[in-house]
Amino acid sequence: MKINYHFLIATITILLLGSSCNEMDSTIEPNSMEDQHPGLVLTSSGLKKIKSNLGNIPVFDRSLAIAKQQLDQEIENGIEVPIPKDYSGGYTHERHKKNYRMMQNAGLLYQILGDEKYADYVKKMLFAYAELYPSLPKHPQTRSYARGKLFWQCLNDSNWLVYTSQAYDCVYNYLSKEEREVLETNLFRPFADYISLENPQFFNRVHNHSTWGNVAVGMIALVLDDDILLQRALNGIKADHLSSDMKDNDGGYIRTKGQKVGFLANLDEPFSPDGYYTEGPYYQRYAMYPFMIFAQALQNKKPELKIFQHKDSVLIKAVDALINLSDQDGEFFLLNDAQKGMSYHAPSLVAAVDIGYHFGGNNPSLLSIAEKQNLVTLDDAGVAVALNIKAGKAQPFVKKSIELSDGPKGEQGAVSVIRSGDLELVYKYTAHGLSHGHYDKLSFSLFDQGDEVIQDYGLARFVNIEQKGGGNYLKENKTWAKQTVAHNTVVQDQQSHFSGTYELGSKNHSEKYITDFENKEVQVVSAVEENAYPGTRLQRTFAIIKDEAQKNPFVLDITQVQSTKEHQFDMPLYYLGQPMKTSFTYDKFKTPKILGSSNGYQHLYQEAKAHLEGSNFQFSWLSNGKFYTYTAINSESDELLFNRIGANDPEYNLRNEPGLMLRKKNVKDALFVSIIESHGTYSPVSELAVNANSFIENIKVIHNSNEYTLIQIEDKKARQKVFAISNLNNRKDAQHQLKVGEKTYSWEGPFALKPNN
Amino acid sequence: MKINYHFLIATITILLLGSSCNEMDSTIEPNSMEDQHPGLVLTSSGLKKIKSNLGNIPVFDRSLAIAKQQLDQEIENGIEVPIPKDYSGGYTHERHKKNYRMMQNAGLLYQILGDEKYADYVKKMLFAYAELYPSLPKHPQTRSYARGKLFWQCLNDSNWLVYTSQAYDCVYNYLSKEEREVLETNLFRPFADYISLENPQFFNRVHNHSTWGNVAVGMIALVLDDDILLQRALNGIKADHLSSDMKDNDGGYIRTKGQKVGFLANLDEPFSPDGYYTEGPYYQRYAMYPFMIFAQALQNKKPELKIFQHKDSVLIKAVDALINLSDQDGEFFLLNDAQKGMSYHAPSLVAAVDIGYHFGGNNPSLLSIAEKQNLVTLDDAGVAVALNIKAGKAQPFVKKSIELSDGPKGEQGAVSVIRSGDLELVYKYTAHGLSHGHYDKLSFSLFDQGDEVIQDYGLARFVNIEQKGGGNYLKENKTWAKQTVAHNTVVQDQQSHFSGTYELGSKNHSEKYITDFENKEVQVVSAVEENAYPGTRLQRTFAIIKDEAQKNPFVLDITQVQSTKEHQFDMPLYYLGQPMKTSFTYDKFKTPKILGSSNGYQHLYQEAKAHLEGSNFQFSWLSNGKFYTYTAINSESDELLFNRIGANDPEYNLRNEPGLMLRKKNVKDALFVSIIESHGTYSPVSELAVNANSFIENIKVIHNSNEYTLIQIEDKKARQKVFAISNLNNRKDAQHQLKVGEKTYSWEGPFALKPNN
Repeated sequence: MKINYHFLIATITILLLGSSCNEMDSTIEPNSMEDQHPGLVLTSSGLKKIKSNLGNIPVFDRSLAIAKQQLDQEIENGIEVPIPKDYSGGYTHERHKKNYRMMQNAGLLYQILGDEKYADYVKKMLFAYAELYPSLPKHPQTRSYARGKLFWQCLNDSNWLVYTSQAYDCVYNYLSKEEREVLETNLFRPFADYISLENPQFFNRVHNHSTWGNVAVGMIALVLDDDILLQRALNGIKADHLSSDMKDNDGGYIRTKGQKVGFLANLDEPFSPDGYYTEGPYYQRYAMYPFMIFAQALQNKKPELKIFQHKDSVLIKAVDALINLSDQDGEFFLLNDAQKGMSYHAPSLVAAVDIGYHFGGNNPSLLSIAEKQNLVTLDDAGVAVALNIKAGKAQPFVKKSIELSDGPKGEQGAVSVIRSGDLELVYKYTAHGLSHGHYDKLSFSLFDQGDEVIQDYGLARFVNIEQKGGGNYLKENKTWAKQTVAHNTVVQDQQSHFSGTYELGSKNHSEKYITDFENKEVQVVSAVEENAYPGTRLQRTFAIIKDEAQKNPFVLDITQVQSTKEHQFDMPLYYLGQPMKTSFTYDKFKTPKILGSSNGYQHLYQEAKAHLEGSNFQFSWLSNGKFYTYTAINSESDELLFNRIGANDPEYNLRNEPGLMLRKKNVKDALFVSIIESHGTYSPVSELAVNANSFIENIKVIHNSNEYTLIQIEDKKARQKVFAISNLNNRKDAQHQLKVGEKTYSWEGPFALKPNN
Repeated sequence: MKINYHFLIATITILLLGSSCNEMDSTIEPNSMEDQHPGLVLTSSGLKKIKSNLGNIPVFDRSLAIAKQQLDQEIENGIEVPIPKDYSGGYTHERHKKNYRMMQNAGLLYQILGDEKYADYVKKMLFAYAELYPSLPKHPQTRSYARGKLFWQCLNDSNWLVYTSQAYDCVYNYLSKEEREVLETNLFRPFADYISLENPQFFNRVHNHSTWGNVAVGMIALVLDDDILLQRALNGIKADHLSSDMKDNDGGYIRTKGQKVGFLANLDEPFSPDGYYTEGPYYQRYAMYPFMIFAQALQNKKPELKIFQHKDSVLIKAVDALINLSDQDGEFFLLNDAQKGMSYHAPSLVAAVDIGYHFGGNNPSLLSIAEKQNLVTLDDAGVAVALNIKAGKAQPFVKKSIELSDGPKGEQGAVSVIRSGDLELVYKYTAHGLSHGHYDKLSFSLFDQGDEVIQDYGLARFVNIEQKGGGNYLKENKTWAKQTVAHNTVVQDQQSHFSGTYELGSKNHSEKYITDFENKEVQVVSAVEENAYPGTRLQRTFAIIKDEAQKNPFVLDITQVQSTKEHQFDMPLYYLGQPMKTSFTYDKFKTPKILGSSNGYQHLYQEAKAHLEGSNFQFSWLSNGKFYTYTAINSESDELLFNRIGANDPEYNLRNEPGLMLRKKNVKDALFVSIIESHGTYSPVSELAVNANSFIENIKVIHNSNEYTLIQIEDKKARQKVFAISNLNNRKDAQHQLKVGEKTYSWEGPFALKPNN
């Protein structure tokens, strides 16, 4: 076995630094390029902690063992660097993806375990790439607005460089100067230039794609200690000559005029001061990895940038925001394009939680999330988390109701998660969310014990499943998933908000009106949207009410529509489950009818129509062993449609799930008022149905004007309560008084819930 | 506080019996009626074991704590004995049901804890019933062929008596002689007479209903020590004057001519010698409770009957059979009418496992099931299980491939569960299964890691959910769930097997041809059905093949149809999941078409039709994070339909799930050959698709005649294997030789799988 002098030197250095190295981390001046490596995610101090505790830090040991087992098997299988050919899900795509992950692990394992076979694996792989890369044309698949070379899009090429830079940092000293020169000249520098200089439409944007591009360039810049390249990463390319109406293949604008670009702009703009990322949690999860890994590397290499303090510590807040945007099982809520099932168990969140903990003030509640993840990163952050879990410092991460503002300055609406009992209601009144945004102002979704009850459809895509359109966005994403009617919100005249145009949508956002979580018996969020349909004002208020007489809280939904002209207003409700009972009769058609021809309506089958009478109707369903009831106010001319998703879906790209739709025709103003209850349970094992029936007797509009809306809720025990809201004055100290018939209602602040009898 | 002399005496008796009581259990002569109580499920020896170990037997302690908590709450709520009014799911039904369960627990807790409040609760409740019962007419709901008094059917009245008898046994000595006389005269004796003498059509049958009836009468007979009543329970009513063409409300015959009745007949007839209960596991689970609880009581009170040895220990075998008829999660396979999700976690199975363990030779693998149940009965059996779990005696219950014969003598076909890797294939070639039977000869279902992949629909019913037809069978159970086309088996000319008539179906059964689980690389079950369609012979062979080159086993399905006339043959396949990829093009209709007008076809929508070319087609889908492919042989004239359940379902009683259907028109003979693979995985968290594509290149019929069928399977690596089966000779030592073209195939035994290249 060849003696690894580099490794010996590194070990000796660590030993010499001794116990004081912790404080010295950010101040020692490196003597040579060799001394600086590794330095991105592993530092000498971190390495020392790892080595002295190895075998004695359960979560870290487990994570290392998993990585080692996978890697050893890959090393045994041998190195494969195929000519690029496939979309995601295909062999060459998945192989190159696996390669960069394996290189990253091999680099870390070489440093941690000192076994040269890992360094050698990285070296051989890198040389295979250095041989292949110079001859590569653009990737043969042409769908992307920014085609990569190893992959079909620059995005994935950037992924490759983000991971591979870390591997290169770890084996830097294992390679000779000459070897490094070959790699840098033939691979790293041209690779970085390709995804930046040669693809400014990809690199010079504010978008999760560009974040990856910026970070890729930034990471290799840090390894190469190249400040010019680092500036390109941080602040973008100076002159890119891109026209301002250029779009990507998701339909998003490349850039608005005068917009700043580069990593710092990507940090400033899409994150709100609360740490909400405007594309939504699914893409925030994806973007968090490059943000956090680069911030970690910057903190280690350029501590003077104080990157974790940037914008009032927005990256640390973002980790917290992201966890709060997950349900009881840790799965992210669906906002904009988002695949269901993504959760904080994703590797990118493991990194985000670990880095957020280590560089963000050692918040002990993050340790409990790390415990659930049961994985840590194999670096400084990971060992810090593992050691503190072992020391018993973890505290529960308690998710409460939360409002997260949107927009760079937090002035472009917000998203709220109202939590009460086992219910989590997600209410969206944000900005558009860049190219992954949906046209669904004031929409909501509802979760119960982590199960989706009122669903947001998510995206029409099977990520990385090659059989389904190469694993990419399917055309139904645009024709269905992004459209307003695919969401639980008001649709006017069967048109999507902002006519479904990105130009309009991206210029507007909803306005917050009330957010009040103080009283756990009635938590209220209200917001207004005035631009989705010109001439129409939408105000939607959710009150989650915990009544002492009932086990579970329930949702009161009041949507006011005021328009200058007559329109048709549809209110869809995408419940999941099996219909149980209705308070009305309905006709189910022999065969379903297609509901419309555009704006998503072409994807809806109508299966049945209801015969509504009286002023209230109820619809109950069973989902995941729980009984739900939707009680809504109706006029006799209202229509209630039973729909199902799946029309005009020639390739079974959509899920055939149900939905109700309450329709009001030819009205200027409309008031949609409803209650959703989770009132009972059913177990197929005990076969017991508990509280299978709604406890709501009826709901009634007592008063509705521009100024006030008063809703009376009566339960099965004839107890009445009135929810009152002031529609124009949201001051907390305002006094309101209103006479309705013989009764006078008075309250303080923008809303109140009071007994009526 | 009143001193409880009865309790003191009981305690003293136990103390006097000391440690030798165990052997004396079945031999001591009781001195008086008092000494015999409790004696049904709790004996003096069992009570002693419980009391001396209480607080120190985790599973028992936990079970007791749960029962106590529920009961204490109920006692606090007070006693309610309402006038009977509702169907199942409704208030009065659920209340009376809760009452008998609470009385049972109260009786046991009184004996175990010695707290009189429990005895008093039972006493008060019994007197409330004794007051109500004499005045009760038949239950107001009229749907049942045997209306009860407390409940809408005698079945539920019998449930009440089975449980309440145990409670009465436990508080017998707490009551005075006079009190007992009131209860016996006004409640127990008329109650027992009503469900037997006054309802012979319910009591004098072989059916799970009658089992409950027999046991109810038998349990109270044992408490009352009334041998005449006990004889009625064991052997039925002598002369019932029932006509032989009488049917119940499920369409089942009350009885065939000359059929024996009573508990012993119900033990002899529906159970096969392997312990399979002809109605299927869902009803076996339901019936196991009365069978086992009465057997336990008989063993304690009438040990001379040796009930657990009856029919070669069929009850003990039945417990084993039932566990083997569950998937990896313990959920029962769907055979005949059966609600999904029922599992060995049901209370009736807790009792069955505990009693089976205690009275069936202390099989240590039953302890591991009891561990999973994490509950035991609060009696002799339960404490035995808890003590032996604590002693570390549990051993895993290893589920292997198994064949369970059907019919009283095991000569009426069978059901097989073929297990290989994570696959469990359930193949049904049984008798009809009494009134809960489905018309689905040679049908199958498939489970993977406990997830249903190819589904059996189960039943069209929401058990105990009042909103759905009173929680009873819905009309779609007959029009859809029972029909042949609702199952994964051959349908001729859109008619159900046996024309869907119980008269014909119940007279016939399929015939086993091969069952061979010896070689884990190729497990084979083959069966023949000659009566489902007169003039048509169906033979279906499943081979589960574990190929060394692939991680997962796969299913080869060969169905031969030979008829004297031309017919249309349909082969439905009810996959669950989202279509991913097809090897052919297909046209999805703008709106679906209804497939037929009767025999279940009226409930199927056709959504698309395929354009089949060549000789093979593939259809892939994703379900529960796993990729599946169905590869089938086709001729160019075959049709492939994409269907969905849910047409003519005016009240949303059906689940809108998909199915394929391969159709061969105007043929006398048909050969359906297909392979189902579970070949890959997808995680929405890692977003990695692993082995998303089938590894089957094609399948080919090399030879097919009356005598032999040879199928060649070629994989993506061009490796060919041939599966050969002899269709007429199933002798294990038979030598076969067949020349096809230039090649000669030779093998020994009924089948072989051999490389072809």
